[in-house]
Amino acid sequence: MQNTTQLFQNGTGAIVVPGLFDGTLTIKELMENGNTGIGSGDGLDGELIIIDNKPYKIDGDGIVSIVNDDFTVPFGNAHFADYEDVSVTPNLNSKDMSDVIFKHKPFENTQFSIKLHGQFSHVTVRSVYKQTKPYPNLIQTAENEHVFEGDNVTGTIIGYYNPSPFSQIAVKGFHMHFIADDLSIGGHLSKFSGFNGHFGIQLFNDFKLRLPVQNNDFLNHNFSKDDIEGSINKTER
Amino acid sequence: MQNTTQLFQNGTGAIVVPGLFDGTLTIKELMENGNTGIGSGDGLDGELIIIDNKPYKIDGDGIVSIVNDDFTVPFGNAHFADYEDVSVTPNLNSKDMSDVIFKHKPFENTQFSIKLHGQFSHVTVRSVYKQTKPYPNLIQTAENEHVFEGDNVTGTIIGYYNPSPFSQIAVKGFHMHFIADDLSIGGHLSKFSGFNGHFGIQLFNDFKLRLPVQNNDFLNHNFSKDDIEGSINKTER
Repeated sequence: MQNTTQLFQNGTGAIVVPGLFDGTLTIKELMENGNTGIGSGDGLDGELIIIDNKPYKIDGDGIVSIVNDDFTVPFGNAHFADYEDVSVTPNLNSKDMSDVIFKHKPFENTQFSIKLHGQFSHVTVRSVYKQTKPYPNLIQTAENEHVFEGDNVTGTIIGYYNPSPFSQIAVKGFHMHFIADDLSIGGHLSKFSGFNGHFGIQLFNDFKLRLPVQNNDFLNHNFSKDDIEGSINKTER
Repeated sequence: MQNTTQLFQNGTGAIVVPGLFDGTLTIKELMENGNTGIGSGDGLDGELIIIDNKPYKIDGDGIVSIVNDDFTVPFGNAHFADYEDVSVTPNLNSKDMSDVIFKHKPFENTQFSIKLHGQFSHVTVRSVYKQTKPYPNLIQTAENEHVFEGDNVTGTIIGYYNPSPFSQIAVKGFHMHFIADDLSIGGHLSKFSGFNGHFGIQLFNDFKLRLPVQNNDFLNHNFSKDDIEGSINKTER
């Protein structure tokens, strides 16, 4: 039976900050833990979004493809979708989103997912290019990302919210990816405006984290000098 | 089949810091996730150590008892024991322990458990009294703990190591509880010296964390002013 109260994650925010971008879990293994999710590929290869068991990748040029089973991820979240519909204000903007959520649900200290599907008057998304070894760090990689703008687009946001104690494990606050229904645009979501459609929330009891304990670069890295939270806040908002 | 590569945890370090001491999981439920572990009881009722499926509590006076199935825990770790024996220097002291471990195993960035069983020339342990509502915070509770000293005692240490990104989720570094074979002394381990015996290490791939999302005190607490890492470091060493 599908466990709809668990959030699964491969890797941590701390791991990608210094450029430990090796894919350490296949997308097939990730999706054994969920039909819905987000992540990135080996070498920080684009932005992933998994919807209804389909794993889409948006590459650095904004090109969308479905990845193969053996595609690997350094960082990824997955869960089995069971969203509760919540009513939000018409023409919702991303800057008002958290206030709207927390007025309805006292979930500030919990982990939950959101799924938005509908019409957006505007979205700003971005994506990164796959890196090769020796890998640059996360901030250096993000400096070369591409930004894409979309007007009057119908699509889906999958996002996760993590409270403050997870600031080095995951992304503190909201971490959201987007893809258009017609696959014309997608990526890491920077902001949106004018949303009308379905807004779902799914609360988790359990968080299952997989660490890449067979990866020598991970085992041997000295994390003590990395600005983990600062780098994540700078690149993942 | 028992999963011996997963560490289970109920609650977080962040939750107990401001005094959210409600037991949120029964010891029976905790032990469905492991036959080995450590924790504390409802109201921060003593120090728990689970060995070979037996859950011992050491109360504030140092009295040892086995707790009932319905005893609840605000914070607890459990896993199914499958330790690998490692050879350590004779007459090991706690201050040398981490150097000895990390010389043998590159586990600084991972989560693992240790189990020591044998003769100790000295142990210093401590335990806290069960608190009642309104609960004091963790530091206030620790100010009234009792310290116990033991010479030439045979017993068991169960401990967990967490790397730095887990500093608000768990206890960064080593978190160890002790109990004597004859149940004459036990508690949260402050230090030991002159250990000779078996030293086991068990590495985890997966960390499964349960958050008390049905507990209103947890949902409604504002954690932003709590010195989470400072309080844990001060009380859990």
